[in-house]
Amino acid sequence: MNIQRFDPGARMSQAVTYNGFVFLAGQVGEGSSVAEQTADILASVDALLARAGSDKTKLLSATIWLTDMSTFGEMNAAWEAWLPAGQGPARATVESRLAAPQYKVEIGIIAAV
Amino acid sequence: MNIQRFDPGARMSQAVTYNGFVFLAGQVGEGSSVAEQTADILASVDALLARAGSDKTKLLSATIWLTDMSTFGEMNAAWEAWLPAGQGPARATVESRLAAPQYKVEIGIIAAV
Amino acid sequence: MNIQRFDPGARMSQAVTYNGFVFLAGQVGEGSSVAEQTADILASVDALLARAGSDKTKLLSATIWLTDMSTFGEMNAAWEAWLPAGQGPARATVESRLAAPQYKVEIGIIAAV
Repeated sequence: MNIQRFDPGARMSQAVTYNGFVFLAGQVGEGSSVAEQTADILASVDALLARAGSDKTKLLSATIWLTDMSTFGEMNAAWEAWLPAGQGPARATVESRLAAPQYKVEIGIIAAV
Repeated sequence: MNIQRFDPGARMSQAVTYNGFVFLAGQVGEGSSVAEQTADILASVDALLARAGSDKTKLLSATIWLTDMSTFGEMNAAWEAWLPAGQGPARATVESRLAAPQYKVEIGIIAAV
Repeated sequence: MNIQRFDPGARMSQAVTYNGFVFLAGQVGEGSSVAEQTADILASVDALLARAGSDKTKLLSATIWLTDMSTFGEMNAAWEAWLPAGQGPARATVESRLAAPQYKVEIGIIAAV
């Protein structure tokens, strides 16, 4: 079984496929609000999944980190606007500080290929 | 390979099976103490695993989030009372605030089906 | 498909293999600095991967928890010194308190076997 890496860099790859799965690096996004950042992240997720031969109907697991849990509703509105009906992954959302202070939300995805 | 979703909602599914794996959504539980919440979570894990065709002898990975790391021992007592001898998953436990203030512990599971 | 557990204890196993994957428990390390702890963790990762029949060219996913995000650069220097060129996993790094106060960094790994 072959491992394929997308955008491999010195520190990580943005996506890795293996054995019918794709793992995405934790995605952060541009924008000043959690709504904008979430929408930007989900556009990046769509693009990475497409390159890996997957799409958002094949999500298996999502981990969402928010820097401030009071933005949970704002993140969820953007998430639910994007998620296909009946196709949600297993998901966990927790509060953590992220790698750079401008980032308010980060999303990690495992999907089927 | 087929993806099967359990309790699919607007935001997530409670469990997703694919390619011999089951991913559970981060589970939270009822109760005032970490011991009570952990026991309630683990009952939910048992029930979801059973619906997915798995059980607690097939755990592969667990991520445990505590809102206060001083409750680590209390969580572990409930966890170890539940875990079959010699069948522990790879596990990581870290501190994070959770989605609602009454929740003191959340557990995410990946298991074999 | 068979589940194999390495160093199974009352609470967890240090590594679990199944269906072409290995899941490692969150690893912590000795040392006073983040650089020392990261290097010690990565030596443990190498040893566990070898026992499981894998190695650091087969990393699929890494989750890194830092207790203080200001040590991000220090962790990355140790990480990049260890990571084979072009072989990076999908990675997410977030800030969380860990199980014991001496630990400043914890790393969870999923790899191919």
